[in-house]
Amino acid sequence: MTDFINTLPRKIEIREVGPREGFQAIKEVIPTEKKIQLINALMDTGVKRLQVTSFAHPKVVPQHADAEDVLNGIDRREGVEVAVLIPNLKGAERAMKCKTDEWNLMLSASDSHSKANANKTTLEALAKMSDIVAMAKDAGVTVTGSMSVALGCPFEGTLPIERLYMIVEEYLKIGVTSVGISDTAGMADPRLTYNYVKELIDRYPEVSYKLHFHNTRGMGLANIIAAMQAGATIFDSSVAGLGGCPFVPNASGNVPTEDLVHAMDRMGVETGINLKQVISISKDLESAFNFKSKGYVTEAGTADQLHDLVMARIASSKK
Amino acid sequence: MTDFINTLPRKIEIREVGPREGFQAIKEVIPTEKKIQLINALMDTGVKRLQVTSFAHPKVVPQHADAEDVLNGIDRREGVEVAVLIPNLKGAERAMKCKTDEWNLMLSASDSHSKANANKTTLEALAKMSDIVAMAKDAGVTVTGSMSVALGCPFEGTLPIERLYMIVEEYLKIGVTSVGISDTAGMADPRLTYNYVKELIDRYPEVSYKLHFHNTRGMGLANIIAAMQAGATIFDSSVAGLGGCPFVPNASGNVPTEDLVHAMDRMGVETGINLKQVISISKDLESAFNFKSKGYVTEAGTADQLHDLVMARIASSKK
Repeated sequence: MTDFINTLPRKIEIREVGPREGFQAIKEVIPTEKKIQLINALMDTGVKRLQVTSFAHPKVVPQHADAEDVLNGIDRREGVEVAVLIPNLKGAERAMKCKTDEWNLMLSASDSHSKANANKTTLEALAKMSDIVAMAKDAGVTVTGSMSVALGCPFEGTLPIERLYMIVEEYLKIGVTSVGISDTAGMADPRLTYNYVKELIDRYPEVSYKLHFHNTRGMGLANIIAAMQAGATIFDSSVAGLGGCPFVPNASGNVPTEDLVHAMDRMGVETGINLKQVISISKDLESAFNFKSKGYVTEAGTADQLHDLVMARIASSKK
Repeated sequence: MTDFINTLPRKIEIREVGPREGFQAIKEVIPTEKKIQLINALMDTGVKRLQVTSFAHPKVVPQHADAEDVLNGIDRREGVEVAVLIPNLKGAERAMKCKTDEWNLMLSASDSHSKANANKTTLEALAKMSDIVAMAKDAGVTVTGSMSVALGCPFEGTLPIERLYMIVEEYLKIGVTSVGISDTAGMADPRLTYNYVKELIDRYPEVSYKLHFHNTRGMGLANIIAAMQAGATIFDSSVAGLGGCPFVPNASGNVPTEDLVHAMDRMGVETGINLKQVISISKDLESAFNFKSKGYVTEAGTADQLHDLVMARIASSKK
């Protein structure tokens, strides 16, 4: 018989971005010790790579002013890579003094979002990256370059795929072969996602693509599955669905890690991540910061938690 | 090039179930006049079929005690069919005296859920249906028979597909060829959905299948798209995501109609439904009943609502 699983990769890599994008979205600044505790707990879930902090200027992103302390404070795990967001040369200089495994560079795929977010065009942002990439190579750390609003810009709408080709080519020119495709504003739909991802993989098979979806319009998981059908195997997600871009009005959070792992577990796609531990961290975040997790399974429980027949009889007797 | 749209039907039929399942989930009893106003507004959205009320016993479902008044009060639209839930013979007798186009029968696919919900086994529930079907034929109304928890029972877990075969066959024996497959507890995943729907369509191609997903674990839309890939074209949804089964603990609502229409619009799948009108009704429900719509696009706006570049400049200047 036909089995849906045959349209999907049997294994995906989930990259936890909660400590960077998520903590940044919590208005209060999380105490460094609490961050370290949460990151350590996340590293124990089986995730292979986490984006733990950002080297943005402390005035721009005060939530990550303690980037050095976080990096120095967390425990290291064999086989768990620690990634950091590097927004500019100054950030790279700070990161050089810390122990990191991967630097994540980012730019906006559209000029309008790029101007709003970084006050420069996409190409101007790219021009500043080669020095950072050279520093990373010297330091022996991996570099990934992502493009925000690649699957929909809140100012320009759907971008032509040629725009994405151009950016991938510019990244390749400076030696970046790991490229993030981000639906920052949650505008992608499964058709656009599948088509764009498939075209990119076909055209630049040497690139390792990382997909990043926001659930702004409820299409996050459907987009991930469409991207998987197009051949993508690396996805960002955020515990409790924390996250969002402050320059994209009404953008809600990332796909919650717990919902993504749960869906993959149910389908038999391997993630290597322990779902119960992620849900437990999501609940810890809820109680520590007084917000409601966006993880559906954190609220409703997992589909394998069967209810006792006794409960059914009670419900029945109440009729 | 490959286009994702080629894996989907180009057109689906969305059946609005908010007035039945949704209104039932609102604790306060909605005044009949308000129901009529909302149903009339929904009939104007372009939907071709609505489930408007239930003939459950008024003591069991007080929210639908006014079924007759609702049916007599709503305006009729050419080409818009009015369906009602018929839980038993007594309900059918009441419905006989009203103007309806379709009767929806339901049972639980598992004995445990059936016992909890209706205090009888699945086969006992089936045995009571043939008289109702005969009455419907006499009255010239269409009959559909659905099966709750078909894609996951909260007490038994995943049901063997043979159980679904058995129920389809029993439905066929009594002349019911329109069969609803309901993920009442929100336990289905896209793989299970695709595989079960595909098997059912292959085995009983003469049956018209209607799929009904709850978004309990965030997989509703992904399940719908998987079902579409398996060949399904008829889906229930509920404005504002209202709904849920009182006998399934923690079951949250249906897939919100606005999110489903929005996703289909973005992909170019025809629904015939006017998205703006649905969002407007969802917001009306929010303000009338003081709850938060579960429709993502009701909160975040649609993906085609582009933000003015001026806003970007303001955001940029605030940095």
